[in-house]
Amino acid sequence: MESKGDVARWFFTMHSIPFIDNRVPMQNWLSDSRFAKNTPFGDLPVLEVDGVTICQHRAIGRLLAKRLGYYGKGDIEQAKIDMIVDCISDIMDHCVVIHFYMEEGPQKQKDLSEFLNKTLPQGIENLSKLLDQNKQGMGFVGDSLTWADFEFASQFSWLEGFGHNANLSTKMKSLMNTVFNIPQIQEYCSKHTKHSY
Amino acid sequence: MESKGDVARWFFTMHSIPFIDNRVPMQNWLSDSRFAKNTPFGDLPVLEVDGVTICQHRAIGRLLAKRLGYYGKGDIEQAKIDMIVDCISDIMDHCVVIHFYMEEGPQKQKDLSEFLNKTLPQGIENLSKLLDQNKQGMGFVGDSLTWADFEFASQFSWLEGFGHNANLSTKMKSLMNTVFNIPQIQEYCSKHTKHSY
Repeated sequence: MESKGDVARWFFTMHSIPFIDNRVPMQNWLSDSRFAKNTPFGDLPVLEVDGVTICQHRAIGRLLAKRLGYYGKGDIEQAKIDMIVDCISDIMDHCVVIHFYMEEGPQKQKDLSEFLNKTLPQGIENLSKLLDQNKQGMGFVGDSLTWADFEFASQFSWLEGFGHNANLSTKMKSLMNTVFNIPQIQEYCSKHTKHSY
Repeated sequence: MESKGDVARWFFTMHSIPFIDNRVPMQNWLSDSRFAKNTPFGDLPVLEVDGVTICQHRAIGRLLAKRLGYYGKGDIEQAKIDMIVDCISDIMDHCVVIHFYMEEGPQKQKDLSEFLNKTLPQGIENLSKLLDQNKQGMGFVGDSLTWADFEFASQFSWLEGFGHNANLSTKMKSLMNTVFNIPQIQEYCSKHTKHSY
């Protein structure tokens, strides 16, 4: 499974920006509360940049996207990118909550069934429409790849890690392949193992 | 209770920008699926601007904050604002899910207890630290009110609507009062009734 910090790591890797990749294995995080206490909001990922600590993966991704040219042209394109990233996160947050935070039992099974039969297919249908609406390029917004496309590829790749299949449209699959075929992302994915945040 | 569309409405009102305030009463939304089908992602709020439809309240708020001068100075301040808005939303989304989407029963009571005894006080403690760290002004970021402060005031005011009390710090209370004492927001709040999205 990819993690919420991966798009930031992809951006650094693609642009040969040196960074300290400080990963906390899940068992260490859960067994030692000092890790959480040293973050602004008790969670990861966190980016330390220019002497400032930023948490929340979307705030981090947006900052890097701005600096590296993946945040569209003009504020309307930027708002579309923000909208799409939030829509993707709404779908995947539902999945993450079920797998990481719910106890085994009938309620978890019911919620998982609702995710797989309603949230996920409906979300894919809505995202597919938004992708089709963009006639300028192969991604969600404008004529080149944006942060929205990287978040889409990263977050939808989590599904496989959870053992789920997503019935993506042809255009969506093609976009996933384009992102994962970027040589630096291919190399990155070949090096990093599952479930490290 | 305030709604997810309120910060956008406050911004329009504060800057005397004419807008069509198309509200859908909850019972109409629930009884007629055409409302959801006419939005990009099946939910509200939605902003139609420059011929484009933007959903997701944070994408809408950020666009208006950019245009109206509530989005900080430079990309680090902007990343801090984004971080704080996402932290606030993480807390409140937990509360909204419990009240709007969970069936009555022991699981709902358990989740509500966890929200009131853990998520909410811990979230307030973390937000309070972030607020205290800003020595430049009374808000979360920089020397003047930003989008983060309006989201804070709006979303924390929902708690009262749900019947909960928040143990806010003195600085947090003062910030809430500053926002709600803006004359146009006072006037707006006096006009609009509860539970309209």
